[in-house]
Amino acid sequence: MPLGRSPRTSPVRSEFGLIRLLQAQAARPDRQVFKGIGDDTAILKTSPAEWTLITTDLLAEGVHFDPALSSFEDIGYRAAVANLSDIAAMGGTPRFLLVAIAIPPTCSAAQVQRLYRGMMQAATPHRVCLVGGDTSASKRGLFLSLTLTGTVQPRRALLRSGARVGDRLYVTGTLGDSHAGLDLLTAIHRPRNTELRPAHTRFLLARHHRPSARLAEGQWLVKHRLAGAAIDLSDGLTGDLRHLCEESTVGADIHAGALPLSPACRAYARARRLDAQQIALQGGEDYELLFTVPRSKQRQFERLATSTNFRFTCIGSITPERLGLRLRTGTGTTRTLPVTSYEHFLRPSQH
Amino acid sequence: MPLGRSPRTSPVRSEFGLIRLLQAQAARPDRQVFKGIGDDTAILKTSPAEWTLITTDLLAEGVHFDPALSSFEDIGYRAAVANLSDIAAMGGTPRFLLVAIAIPPTCSAAQVQRLYRGMMQAATPHRVCLVGGDTSASKRGLFLSLTLTGTVQPRRALLRSGARVGDRLYVTGTLGDSHAGLDLLTAIHRPRNTELRPAHTRFLLARHHRPSARLAEGQWLVKHRLAGAAIDLSDGLTGDLRHLCEESTVGADIHAGALPLSPACRAYARARRLDAQQIALQGGEDYELLFTVPRSKQRQFERLATSTNFRFTCIGSITPERLGLRLRTGTGTTRTLPVTSYEHFLRPSQH
Repeated sequence: MPLGRSPRTSPVRSEFGLIRLLQAQAARPDRQVFKGIGDDTAILKTSPAEWTLITTDLLAEGVHFDPALSSFEDIGYRAAVANLSDIAAMGGTPRFLLVAIAIPPTCSAAQVQRLYRGMMQAATPHRVCLVGGDTSASKRGLFLSLTLTGTVQPRRALLRSGARVGDRLYVTGTLGDSHAGLDLLTAIHRPRNTELRPAHTRFLLARHHRPSARLAEGQWLVKHRLAGAAIDLSDGLTGDLRHLCEESTVGADIHAGALPLSPACRAYARARRLDAQQIALQGGEDYELLFTVPRSKQRQFERLATSTNFRFTCIGSITPERLGLRLRTGTGTTRTLPVTSYEHFLRPSQH
Repeated sequence: MPLGRSPRTSPVRSEFGLIRLLQAQAARPDRQVFKGIGDDTAILKTSPAEWTLITTDLLAEGVHFDPALSSFEDIGYRAAVANLSDIAAMGGTPRFLLVAIAIPPTCSAAQVQRLYRGMMQAATPHRVCLVGGDTSASKRGLFLSLTLTGTVQPRRALLRSGARVGDRLYVTGTLGDSHAGLDLLTAIHRPRNTELRPAHTRFLLARHHRPSARLAEGQWLVKHRLAGAAIDLSDGLTGDLRHLCEESTVGADIHAGALPLSPACRAYARARRLDAQQIALQGGEDYELLFTVPRSKQRQFERLATSTNFRFTCIGSITPERLGLRLRTGTGTTRTLPVTSYEHFLRPSQH
């Protein structure tokens, strides 16, 4: 099944929450740390004029990517976008990149070169500078670790914890396209051209291989002081909304009919007889931004947004914590959103 | 053979140099980058009052560590020291740590907790603050990626490229202890208590499991402006001296008889019928500092050093590049130091 996959099976995976707790315990108060573990990036009060953002990601072959499904350029591109997106979710400007790589015996220098090319294709347009890294051997499997720094105006970063009851929930772009693209790659029986137009197939594959980091959108929200909270969508809307609500101690209502879907994703869902809204709710790695706008600023936000090229969609609102995460459908019914954890990558044989 | 191991066999390993070249090509000039790829850390001109250091390391199970040989606390401790040592080699002060970890199904949350405990035992005494990280699954093998930032006074960092012909070469501490400790762990036939005193065994194992990051020494060198160049010894004296000489476009003469050896390392070499000087030259992961002192400052350096508790040993001098790296022995002979690459970890079965 492409959606609603089985829960993570590794004995330690179910304890990721515990491990995050350990990390938080290991962190000690420090006068320069505005925000440590628990948001998209750490926020460091490094100078009065400008604060520093810093984030790190470790990507494992067979878990986050598979060279059998993606080119090395695309693997590098997506790895860079995952980090750029964390800076985008804070409303920051990315600056310096460090790349550590553990290379298995099966991997050639030419492949590593293509990986770097892809990373820099994603990073260079944002004027990110590669300043360091580490190269080592891996007995088995390629591992990539990226660290990205950025800057943000003091006290202006968009936190996960800034959502308040009554705020409106917005997303950038369209949802579910990356997941549909991954499904097209991994499906044993792909839809025929008569079922899904080649242009739609190309679009969905491109959204999976080369997603966009919404840096301009995040910076625009910070500049106009319009957002209360923000997070980037890497684990899927349901999963990341839960993170935002937990950090803000609130609940949320999502309007199923409002979820922004691309024509390609709709066509894909039809061809596969799937529910496009479910793909939008649970599909991961869209790297769109999910953010809140206080009700008092909604009119100003909508007015200013019309003068941009950004695509923003209101998909719901923030509710009291006790109401939890709910989905409202067009027929007026309301159901609780399930707790899901997105598998970034699974081979068909493992479904 | 514990020393003089076979060359790295992975097809890509011999191309690490090429990959480093690719990294350097991907790096673009930036007004805030004082030093990018090619030193122990990057140096960023982030504010007029204080520059930022940043370094990242990726450690792979079976390559850099083996849970069958070291406790998870010790694995964490050594991982933190490897990064602290990079900051020490610049003469900097460490500040913020990020830890990304990919956890295999075989690894328990309790083991991960011990790993964090070890890391923080190394980092906390230096007032390093854990501010971020990433936790993911690994199909096979534990992978650890650490990123550490630090600060240094503008234009005061110790570069690999600062060595000049005539400079004196110094090291901190003693050399070869960590490698002797690793050999004791991996040897099929360990020396008996009658051959090597238990206190010596304990000392060597402790130097392997819990090496010291020479932060105070590096900061002292910066404060008194005494050093020309510096590097930390992770790949072994011969390997890291080569890095320093390449970056400074110089050669070097090492005096074999001057190499600082612990009584335990000498006793170990006797028990195993090995050459202790060879262990000191080639053994890796000592995390001591190798640095140069201009001849004009040598007297001042020696005088000031007597008022510290630091152990510094003059082991040779910098020569013109055309003379290469040479070893001078007590009998007056001179031989060229071989090009070696230290294997951080190899199981006995793979020797």
